[in-house]
Amino acid sequence: MIQNDLFLRTLRGESAERPPVWFMRQAGRYLPDYMVLKEKYSFFERVQNPDLAREITVMPIDQVGVDAAILFSDILVIAQSLGLQVDMVTGKGPVLQTATTQAEVAALNVENTEEFFHYATPAIKAVKEGLENRVPLIGFAGSPWTLLCYMVQGQGSKDFGEAKRFILNEPERAKVMLEKITEATIRYLHIQIDAGCDTLQIFDSWGGMLSPAMYDEFSLPYMARITEAVKDQVPVILFAKGAWYALDKLHATGASALGLSWTTSPDYARKICGPDAVFQGNLDPTTLLASPDVVARATKKMIDSFGGHHHIVNLGHGVLPTTSVDSARAFVETAKAYRY
Amino acid sequence: MIQNDLFLRTLRGESAERPPVWFMRQAGRYLPDYMVLKEKYSFFERVQNPDLAREITVMPIDQVGVDAAILFSDILVIAQSLGLQVDMVTGKGPVLQTATTQAEVAALNVENTEEFFHYATPAIKAVKEGLENRVPLIGFAGSPWTLLCYMVQGQGSKDFGEAKRFILNEPERAKVMLEKITEATIRYLHIQIDAGCDTLQIFDSWGGMLSPAMYDEFSLPYMARITEAVKDQVPVILFAKGAWYALDKLHATGASALGLSWTTSPDYARKICGPDAVFQGNLDPTTLLASPDVVARATKKMIDSFGGHHHIVNLGHGVLPTTSVDSARAFVETAKAYRY
Repeated sequence: MIQNDLFLRTLRGESAERPPVWFMRQAGRYLPDYMVLKEKYSFFERVQNPDLAREITVMPIDQVGVDAAILFSDILVIAQSLGLQVDMVTGKGPVLQTATTQAEVAALNVENTEEFFHYATPAIKAVKEGLENRVPLIGFAGSPWTLLCYMVQGQGSKDFGEAKRFILNEPERAKVMLEKITEATIRYLHIQIDAGCDTLQIFDSWGGMLSPAMYDEFSLPYMARITEAVKDQVPVILFAKGAWYALDKLHATGASALGLSWTTSPDYARKICGPDAVFQGNLDPTTLLASPDVVARATKKMIDSFGGHHHIVNLGHGVLPTTSVDSARAFVETAKAYRY
Repeated sequence: MIQNDLFLRTLRGESAERPPVWFMRQAGRYLPDYMVLKEKYSFFERVQNPDLAREITVMPIDQVGVDAAILFSDILVIAQSLGLQVDMVTGKGPVLQTATTQAEVAALNVENTEEFFHYATPAIKAVKEGLENRVPLIGFAGSPWTLLCYMVQGQGSKDFGEAKRFILNEPERAKVMLEKITEATIRYLHIQIDAGCDTLQIFDSWGGMLSPAMYDEFSLPYMARITEAVKDQVPVILFAKGAWYALDKLHATGASALGLSWTTSPDYARKICGPDAVFQGNLDPTTLLASPDVVARATKKMIDSFGGHHHIVNLGHGVLPTTSVDSARAFVETAKAYRY
């Protein structure tokens, strides 16, 4: 059994003595020991090699003291599994082979999922060993819409204008693509569950770039399908950054918790989803650029605002690479010292 | 008198036969004739030379047929007037001298406002002549928070992390800076009113990057002060991109209209602000990257969603430089053909 099960208890809606804490992108990015590994091994070596995946995933448990681990990986592995080349370019971010023509979309290969993810089971088993049942392990995937953003745009973007032009001009082709991403994602999440992940989070990082009507058409149904396919096996957390207008519908999927951006107040979220909903978040990640005492005060104020229950302390988006370890620790320690 | 006063009538809350239409950043950016001027003259020559300002401001009236003109300028002129060097670097955007230390903030010079803006009166008078009373002229400024973002960060940013670190670590110094920006902005807006601007818009482009609590502290009060200082002379439009959570408070400033981002549905906005509020927006600017027939359908659907009154057709943010003139025209013509 998992020794510190505060996170899982909170996900089940049970009452707790304090909120559990972890943060998005906690594995890697800002930790000096991670930067050493980053110099030595390529991104996908770090993801696929069981020893490296274990070391990086466990690092924030040992060094920052969070209440849950999240598998070191990237949402773009689904684009790889579907057959697209993905390169992580230092100083630029991901660069992907795109799929936009009918032939390119037809060539995306869902049947390759299990073969592509042959590395995932040993990596997850190694991570679970490294965790020694101290805290639960979160598996994850990106939302189909967020994946499509990268697979059409070919890289990160301020507005993902190419991706939006694609869904506007070619909605039917876009839906074929979203279906394929959804199917591959469900297969991949089942691999994660079978290998030992205790819970799953779906990252709809660019959901909030869509209008409410476009969200209902191009993101929500696929998030709902994925949730439906796995929620009876493990608790599911849905995080749709900025998509405050879809909270009610995301809640209705039956997910165990909803991640909130920092622009969505807990008051608003509780009004929309009711007093029993479990929320995760929502400190602005740039807050962790401030000095540790400022971080501690802001974190306490944020926890207060969630009203003393059904809350998982987290950021409102991934931790920034320029965050200091001291500020990350101030965030975690404030949550751990809190008492309801 | 202004011949086409549909825009002003709508701002006054009067009923109209159709919604007026204009779009943010309509002057410059995507028009081929503007690109010719851009090659020949520097950005601030185009802003300050009355003949160029007139030509660029009037261009979208003649070429795209919008119902209002907006002065060709940039929100960063206030940073210049306060004493900071601003360069517009091709392919990169604005690069500013920053002000973050106590001495740098103390050196920001509000008293220089009238002298710096000596160019504005002849430029606005030239624009008004060029418009020949066909449509009203909108003057504008950035919000103090949005100005601070650039004055601290020194350039555009995905998250304005430096600006947020500054307000967290040095809140009192930040407020001195916001006060100075507010005062200079009010003086500049009075110059715009006196020279003939018929209405004003305040652009809080990065308001929606703040949490609701931070917005209340670092953006809203300054927007309210500016509105209070000018609203008895001309109608004021407040556009706080992404700050859906502050709609009620922005409405309470007494502004004549509120600009909405594309992620804020008209239903939500009407529920918060009541049936008599006037809204402006809110098509996702990336929609204009699609083909003209897709643009026309999306524009009609957007106008429908505002329910047939108290609506100014616009985008949810500035028009993208890669927009085709045909798609911009499809947007405008759809609004002009609409009948309530």
